[in-house]
Parts: sequence; C-alpha cells; structure tokens
Amino acid sequence: MKKIHFNKITIIGVGLIGGSLAISLKEAGACATVVGVGRGVENLKTAKRLGIIDSYTTDVKEGVKDSDFVVVGVPVLSIAKVIKTAAPYFKKGAIVTDVGSVKEAVVRDVEPLMPDSVFFVGGHPIAGTEHSGAEAAFSGLFKDRRCILTPTSNTDNNALEKVKAMWELAGSEVVIMDAKAHDVILASVSHLPHVIAYSLVNTVADMEQKAGDVLKYSAGGFKDFTRIASSSPEMWRDICLMNKDAVLRLLDEFQKRLDEIKGHIKDGNAELVQKDFERAKRVRDSLKR
Amino acid sequence: MKKIHFNKITIIGVGLIGGSLAISLKEAGACATVVGVGRGVENLKTAKRLGIIDSYTTDVKEGVKDSDFVVVGVPVLSIAKVIKTAAPYFKKGAIVTDVGSVKEAVVRDVEPLMPDSVFFVGGHPIAGTEHSGAEAAFSGLFKDRRCILTPTSNTDNNALEKVKAMWELAGSEVVIMDAKAHDVILASVSHLPHVIAYSLVNTVADMEQKAGDVLKYSAGGFKDFTRIASSSPEMWRDICLMNKDAVLRLLDEFQKRLDEIKGHIKDGNAELVQKDFERAKRVRDSLKR
Repeated sequence: MKKIHFNKITIIGVGLIGGSLAISLKEAGACATVVGVGRGVENLKTAKRLGIIDSYTTDVKEGVKDSDFVVVGVPVLSIAKVIKTAAPYFKKGAIVTDVGSVKEAVVRDVEPLMPDSVFFVGGHPIAGTEHSGAEAAFSGLFKDRRCILTPTSNTDNNALEKVKAMWELAGSEVVIMDAKAHDVILASVSHLPHVIAYSLVNTVADMEQKAGDVLKYSAGGFKDFTRIASSSPEMWRDICLMNKDAVLRLLDEFQKRLDEIKGHIKDGNAELVQKDFERAKRVRDSLKR
Repeated sequence: MKKIHFNKITIIGVGLIGGSLAISLKEAGACATVVGVGRGVENLKTAKRLGIIDSYTTDVKEGVKDSDFVVVGVPVLSIAKVIKTAAPYFKKGAIVTDVGSVKEAVVRDVEPLMPDSVFFVGGHPIAGTEHSGAEAAFSGLFKDRRCILTPTSNTDNNALEKVKAMWELAGSEVVIMDAKAHDVILASVSHLPHVIAYSLVNTVADMEQKAGDVLKYSAGGFKDFTRIASSSPEMWRDICLMNKDAVLRLLDEFQKRLDEIKGHIKDGNAELVQKDFERAKRVRDSLKR
C-alpha cells in the first residue's frame, strides 16, 4: 500500500461518508489536521466533539484555504456549486475529489471549474447506511467495500494515484471505471431500489389511509425491505434528478418485469410465476450475506 | 394465559412455521407427542434428529389418526387438498388449523371439507424469515409477533379459544379478523414486497446479462432490500395465485405510485420528488426497528 500524508485535509459536508472518511484517515495517520465545512453548525459541533474533525467553519472559502486535499461530500446537485465557490481559494497543487453517487454529470460540471494546478478526481465509495449526519459516521464503513473512481482524459495521473491510495488506506478496493458505466450500474443496484422502497412505503401508507391499520401487521421482512426508505430524502432526490436517464431507464425495465409477473398472476400461470421467482432466488442466493 | 394440553399433535408440513410451532408447544409442555407429516423424508428425518417432532410419516391419513390437534403448514394451494385427503381420518373432536398467508380462499375451500365434530379455524402467524425447511425452525419465531385468526359464522367457539390459547402459548398476540381484511393487509405489507423483490432482482440480473458486472457493486442496502427474494418460490407462487385479487390490486396501486415519481423525475420537479421521499421516510421511521 502506498504511503500518503497530507498536512491539511478539508471535508466539505461532514455526514456519514465525509465523517467516516475523516475518521479512517486520522486513524491511518494520513493527515495532520482535518477541517470540516458545512452549513449546519450543530452537525459540525457534533463532529468536533466526536473527534472526527479538528476544527470547522461554515465558510467554504476559508475551509479550503491551504488545504492539500479536499473531499466534497455534499448532495450531488450541490457538488458543482460548492466547488465553484471554493475554486479561487484552492491551494496550488491541491487535490479535490468527491464522493457523489452520480458521476457523469458531476464530473462534466466540475472539471471546467478547476483552476490550473488544482486536480479533480471523481469518486464514489460503494458504502453507506440509511443513517446520515456526523453522528452516523464510523471507522469501518469503507473496509472491504469497493470505491469507484471515474477519471477522464483530463485527469492528472498523480492525483488519481493519491486518491486511489487514500481509499485503499481507508480499507477499500479501488475500481477505475467510465463515469457513464458507473451511473448505469449504480442506477441498477442502488438508485432503483431506493425509488422502489420509497414508493412501496407510500403505497402501503395510502392503504393505511384507506383501510385502517395495515402497517402494524408488517413483520421483519417488510422492515428489512423498507429500511432504505429511511435514507435522506434530499440526497436521494438529487441522485434521481442528476442520474435521470439511467434511473428512468431502470424504472422502465423494472415496470416491464412487473407487467410480466402481473400477467402471469392474472392468467393463473403457476409455472411462469414459479420460474420467475426461482430465477430471482438463484441470483439473490448467489450474493454473499 | 389459558392452560392447554393435547395428547397428540400433528404438524403437516414441518417447515419453518410448522417446525417452530412444534418446538414452541413442546417447550411450553402443551403436548405429549408431536407427529410430523410431509412429502420429503429427508426433511422429516432432520426434524426428528433436531427433536422438533417425535415421529413422522409421509402418509397424511396415518399422521392425523388419533390426533387432537392438527396444524397444516403446507403452501396455501395445497392446504385444501391435504385436508380433503385427511378428512375421513380425523379424530372426532379434533381441532384443525392452518398457518397459510392467504385466508379467504383457504377458509372458503376448507370449511365444507370438515366432517361433523371436527373443528377448523383459519390462522396466520405474522412471522417468518427468508429461510425454509425444518432446519430453519427455532423456538422464538412467534414471540411478540401477531397471529391473525379468521373465524367465520361456522367456527366453533371452543375450538377458536383453544387455537388462540395455543398461539398465546407460543408467545404471540392473537388478533381476530375477517379473512378478506386479512388478505388485503397481507397483500400490502408482505405479498406486494415479495413480488417487488423478486422482480427487482430479475431486473438487475437482466442488466448484468446486458451490461456485464453489476451485482458485484451491490452494497448492504441492496442485500437487505432483496433478502426476501431468497424466500421459497413455490410458497410465494401459491400465495400470489391464491390472493390474486388483492395482489393485483396492490401491484396496480404501486405502479401508479411509480408512474407518479417517474413523472416527477422526468419533469425535474425537485420539490415533488422530495415531498414523496420525505413522506415515505416519515412513515418508515415510525415503524419500530
């Protein structure tokens, strides 16, 4: 593993991801000091109290000053905005990366904003829980997870290597990928499931309004199944809007599948219903855990 | 709690539910002996080895002979068939109950099959995991869960009381409900989620076939979300076909919700997307665990 050390790291958005990364880098001795930047002072105070950051500011310009490494962990629609504000204040030679769940649009919007001798690398750690905020951050979040980096022809190779080393230090396996490919994959295994979970909970809430007690009869399966509907609405709104094409494509594919199974159920076609369920079980059972 | 004791109990279908009930009743000292009935000898052998049952047979007629209490834990489309075979051999005064996830059709089909002085009560414990078979059975499965009983005007009151006492002994809170109401509630919180989970996994499997590695990028959220797609395809096929009306109705409602959110995403309407997700989060957060 490559040894890296930064004098000053800035985390913009000290939430679950940004906060957990700060903890991991501090534990690994990869930096002298971590500055947290955010809009909510309460969250920043919590982060300082928990030892996640050493100091904080609500002013992005002040936060990135003299920083060698800047991690942007804000909802995806805000990444370019934040970087635009910060751009004139980045240190020469600084490396900037993000942790957004959408990559094509983010990289497209951010790259033109970078001043000379400041280097951007788009990134996305495939990790998370349904909780948010600094309080939810913990050290092992990235351990044995994959982190996808999406460099372009504009990406500085040294910067890419340093961002890669940083994620490896946090315990992740780094995968280099085209941003568009990333967005389709994540739409499949993450964005679509979130939209489905939110919509399912709303469907059941509708039934509760129409038919009385329904939710009190939900058991463990429903709770497991809908846990991700507790995720941050603001964050997932941004992801859906920014990865619109892939999310809509996957929703269409999913609805085609639903129409098919509905048809089989309507026809009372036991064989085709079972075949469908069996295939899904086979695939699901093949995933670890 | 009412004290009950049966000399001989028969469990037809010694799977997760039937097996766990046998364990609970034995632990509570509610019976002298438990006979397991099933088609698969291997599963019955396992159940005997694990001490879940005292003896077994693959012959339903033999299994119900002299039994005071018969629990039918087979997939819902098979309940009436099994009871039809067993009916002439039930002991006078025996109580028969089922644990099927669909109630209206089961109760409608089973009631006319009961001989004089043999008493049927439809039931459904709201408990389960994605695992099946005797090996998956465990003692605490019904503890602090709800069990719904769906008596009709034909139901014997003494039999109802005994079935109720039996589930209370296993740790459940018993709720009496109309079979049709049960079927709509369960379609909402259980049958719909299962159809969605199976269809989602198949959608992602389709993407994997089209686009290469996709599933390896799934993280904890996807795995939690799709855990129920590991459930028994045969069991869920039967449930969907037997609760067809309610399942199709809920699928329609869910697809309407999906169409709505798709529209908001297509329009880039951040406000409405967020409102939708916020409502779902509020409802999900209100559920315990």
